[in-house]
Amino acid sequence: MKGDKNVDIQALKDIANKLRIDSIVATNASKSGHPTSCASMAEIMSVLFFHTMRYKISAPRDASADRFILSKGHAAPILYAAWAEAGLFPVEELKNLRKLDSDLEGHPTPRLNFVDVGTGSLGQGLAVAAGMAYVGKYFDQAPYRVYCLVGDGEAAEGSVWESLHFASHYKLDNLVVIFDVNRLGQSEPTSLQHQLDVYDARMKAFGLHSIVVDGHDVSELVKAFDEAAAAPGKPTAIIAKTFKGKNFPGIEDLENWHGKALGADGDKIIKHLQSLIKNNNITLKPKAPLAEAPKVHIGDITLSAPPAYKAGELVATRLAYGTALKKIADTNMRVIALDGDTKNSTFSDKLRNAYPERYIECFIAEQNLVGVATGAACRDRAVVFASTFAAFFTRTFDQIRMGAISQSNINLAGSHCGVSIGEDGPSQMGLEDLALFRAVPTATVFYPSDAVSTERAVELAANTKGICYIRTSRPNTAILYANDEVFKVGSSKIVRQSPKDRVLLIGAGVTLHECLLAADKLKAEGVEARVLDPFTIKPLDEAAVQQHAKAVGGRVVVVEDHYQAGGLGEAVLSALAMQRDTLVKHVCVRAVPRSGPPAVLLDHYGISAPHVRAAALALLKA
Amino acid sequence: MKGDKNVDIQALKDIANKLRIDSIVATNASKSGHPTSCASMAEIMSVLFFHTMRYKISAPRDASADRFILSKGHAAPILYAAWAEAGLFPVEELKNLRKLDSDLEGHPTPRLNFVDVGTGSLGQGLAVAAGMAYVGKYFDQAPYRVYCLVGDGEAAEGSVWESLHFASHYKLDNLVVIFDVNRLGQSEPTSLQHQLDVYDARMKAFGLHSIVVDGHDVSELVKAFDEAAAAPGKPTAIIAKTFKGKNFPGIEDLENWHGKALGADGDKIIKHLQSLIKNNNITLKPKAPLAEAPKVHIGDITLSAPPAYKAGELVATRLAYGTALKKIADTNMRVIALDGDTKNSTFSDKLRNAYPERYIECFIAEQNLVGVATGAACRDRAVVFASTFAAFFTRTFDQIRMGAISQSNINLAGSHCGVSIGEDGPSQMGLEDLALFRAVPTATVFYPSDAVSTERAVELAANTKGICYIRTSRPNTAILYANDEVFKVGSSKIVRQSPKDRVLLIGAGVTLHECLLAADKLKAEGVEARVLDPFTIKPLDEAAVQQHAKAVGGRVVVVEDHYQAGGLGEAVLSALAMQRDTLVKHVCVRAVPRSGPPAVLLDHYGISAPHVRAAALALLKA
Repeated sequence: MKGDKNVDIQALKDIANKLRIDSIVATNASKSGHPTSCASMAEIMSVLFFHTMRYKISAPRDASADRFILSKGHAAPILYAAWAEAGLFPVEELKNLRKLDSDLEGHPTPRLNFVDVGTGSLGQGLAVAAGMAYVGKYFDQAPYRVYCLVGDGEAAEGSVWESLHFASHYKLDNLVVIFDVNRLGQSEPTSLQHQLDVYDARMKAFGLHSIVVDGHDVSELVKAFDEAAAAPGKPTAIIAKTFKGKNFPGIEDLENWHGKALGADGDKIIKHLQSLIKNNNITLKPKAPLAEAPKVHIGDITLSAPPAYKAGELVATRLAYGTALKKIADTNMRVIALDGDTKNSTFSDKLRNAYPERYIECFIAEQNLVGVATGAACRDRAVVFASTFAAFFTRTFDQIRMGAISQSNINLAGSHCGVSIGEDGPSQMGLEDLALFRAVPTATVFYPSDAVSTERAVELAANTKGICYIRTSRPNTAILYANDEVFKVGSSKIVRQSPKDRVLLIGAGVTLHECLLAADKLKAEGVEARVLDPFTIKPLDEAAVQQHAKAVGGRVVVVEDHYQAGGLGEAVLSALAMQRDTLVKHVCVRAVPRSGPPAVLLDHYGISAPHVRAAALALLKA
Repeated sequence: MKGDKNVDIQALKDIANKLRIDSIVATNASKSGHPTSCASMAEIMSVLFFHTMRYKISAPRDASADRFILSKGHAAPILYAAWAEAGLFPVEELKNLRKLDSDLEGHPTPRLNFVDVGTGSLGQGLAVAAGMAYVGKYFDQAPYRVYCLVGDGEAAEGSVWESLHFASHYKLDNLVVIFDVNRLGQSEPTSLQHQLDVYDARMKAFGLHSIVVDGHDVSELVKAFDEAAAAPGKPTAIIAKTFKGKNFPGIEDLENWHGKALGADGDKIIKHLQSLIKNNNITLKPKAPLAEAPKVHIGDITLSAPPAYKAGELVATRLAYGTALKKIADTNMRVIALDGDTKNSTFSDKLRNAYPERYIECFIAEQNLVGVATGAACRDRAVVFASTFAAFFTRTFDQIRMGAISQSNINLAGSHCGVSIGEDGPSQMGLEDLALFRAVPTATVFYPSDAVSTERAVELAANTKGICYIRTSRPNTAILYANDEVFKVGSSKIVRQSPKDRVLLIGAGVTLHECLLAADKLKAEGVEARVLDPFTIKPLDEAAVQQHAKAVGGRVVVVEDHYQAGGLGEAVLSALAMQRDTLVKHVCVRAVPRSGPPAVLLDHYGISAPHVRAAALALLKA
């Protein structure tokens, strides 16, 4: 039964039906899951895992191996089944699907050693795959290839189209995206159903090499993947016409079977599937990678030179971000930067100007920006910094949320935070970004208040696992620290104190400078104030906040250029939740701001030094 | 100088150059802004505002008038100039651009009576326009048309492609999207530059009627807009080849002029522009709307029947959401629902089943979902409820953030919050949604804990201005309230109390039920606990929290199925920030969860009744 080019076509067919059976067994054991979504892609998985892809069972996330991203993460059972059938773990373990003590979760996460990123929020996989492919083609210059399977339902997500454009713009011919066009969404048919010609036209218009296939025809798939490998200068899209619940009699191509275990219907269907299998003892082994990817070292990143500022100098933290980014790129070839056409505002262009080949312009498509960053960081290939305006990370909160599930190591820098940006107005002001990043369990949030600490924040972020966020500001601010000051994650600085302090002022970025101004004024009025720079908002230096709050008699003013909820103020309140006899005045932006000059806005929205002073005085009377 | 069809072509040319001059004058006065981005679209604005569009200067946001959405909001000065030149306000006022006391902000907001929504975060305008067009075509069935101008830089945003697909799927032939392809982004040329053929192919592949024009040729534009009006069954895309800084000698089509006032160069360029103008005293008046849009009433929405539950019944709040949605739709024809292919999970299908013509399926494209909702709600045309999983609103945080700036009146419902969804795992769990919505200054956040209060939350949301968010839960939970219980925004309920209470337990959704279980157990151990249901998380009933916290001796346990930051816990801490001698134990999800059965997860992640009890006992010892 050998087909073209010595491919064992029948074996691939048999494996596809075995994967279907595995998917039914697993979802029946867990009494939930998406067997019909697995069934539509069984032949695709069979061909990829048992014919096309080059990888090692001994090292599923080997740097040299082909990558596979299951963007439609709800088809997790068939991904698990493929790895089990390939020999990574016993097929019997699939019955632990969705149990608390199993890593075989409802949607894939990197708790499994063969998964690169968490998927399940739809439309995100392709950006990650594109990031991997970019690294493979341009940085690793290795022959490994990247495959991404996208559902037709999720093809409605705009993020998919951002990534298609990115992939074709950068000629990622090592990337193959497979659309599993099974016609049915969760609650009704997809808008395009089986209009394969529409998908095809869109792929071609987006600059991909497009191949329409019968997604249940193993031979066609083999041929399409071979053709993809020979298509130079373009990523390939394989548009696979499939049927949801394929080979499940009474279920195939019918509505109302999304996300449902087959239950009592399962046995009969499994019998039918077994009847389709010619040989139950198949031993197809994956092909080995063609070549080793280069060894890279991404640890122990340092600035090429310490900060070099003069006391009294005025420097925007966003500028210091760019300076530091270039300095860490000096010392490690794998430091890369990405931006969304704001590089001359975030100052990521400082890296680009020095090392143009290590900068990836992602244009105005922030979801893809973060997805590509995530992909580039996978398998420890690069130290990735992605920047845009702080406000625009709201565009990509879902990708960041999934980044926590993905155990991503990416560094994100948001400039232009708060009302202090001035005239551009509220659409450009990051006033929710601290709430966003504090809500991410694995995040580290830096909010440096001068250029020296900003440079150290960049250096620390490069060496800190998880998602790091660096919040930078637009206006020029004074240097506060000596160039040799040492900074640590979770360690605050007291920038002003005396034994007679009666109030603690906490600010960050521009508001730390307002706190210092307020402290001057208060001192002239006979009130000594202590001023704390948290440096990281998450983790917050809770011990220091508690200690100094107590030392000044439990009077705390927190000031931030951010809305009321979820930012520095509430971080401080959380730190003091179990402290008795502490009062906290929270000074923040409480309304949607307007355009205006920065200093005018700081005052108008109540976060300038006079407001800090007034809050401190009110506390002394409370 | 009359051209085709009695159009005064020269007048339209003259107006275009006047608009350029106005844009230079305004941005020079404010010393910031984007005059070159205005210049590329001057002829488009001239033709739209002085030839094509039908509107009333006396009522800029009249329901019957054509709509114009400037998606590239940074070109605000030319929008303001068009309205000024049309006679809405003195041209002289343009010099107040970006001043704190002027509504002529850096990017447009509805503080101006001629702006429907805030723009400036790119790629969002088209979804809003599509929502307006949907309402115009299907609900109002009125002849008004919707025009949306999109920059070529922002065409990289995936959200634009979601909206293009939506517009063609629903045959919105009353919608025209104009792409101002001026070739240059902020920091470098766009990825497609002047490849008009690529834009054209993409538009056709997305099902639009596509017309490529010279965007500086007034005659071509007039013709294209006429052609668009005659293209039945399809939205039209006009791909306009333009030049950034057009008619600015020494600046036109050059890089490094994005977002810069012309300063000293301005005078010379204004002189040049004046030399192009044949007649300075043009008096073109807009055409009046073709017909009146129907009068609609969207106030005083009520449930068609009060909640009707039995004590002891177990009903998921997500199901009660659907029930209530259908009930308010019974009483008002303009109540509509939108969903992103999750309608059988969120139960928005209850409205669809009763009133299919008032349901808009938005498929899996959440950014467009919220954008269309925003557009549909504009000019008080509809009472809009858009639903998906709570987790997936993170996908559209930027749209929601802009919704606050837009003074949007939309209701969003997020189901499947927290670990209580169980086996699907973390990608499907809304654990950041309260942080997201609390960060929005204009939001009202409902978190009902039983079916009765959920129905009332829906009714209240329908009548509450601003963005309303309703957080619903997947599991069935007990009925807590009598069917005639009255609920108010910002008003909590005490669901259990005694004079001997020594601790206050605050929970919502599933955790309120855990609090009640914990209170039972504590009572058996001789500790009386008071239990508070906040009903709305924003505004939180701060007075009640303060009063009851004090009444029980300052011991508060807050429990939530949400991550630590930004949710109910920190809302309570903010309410108690200025209360002395209060201790708060915050019980919440502190790590990225796994798949597992709901009850097992509640316990594993520390938010079940035993954990609430333990926190209460710890407080009694503190």
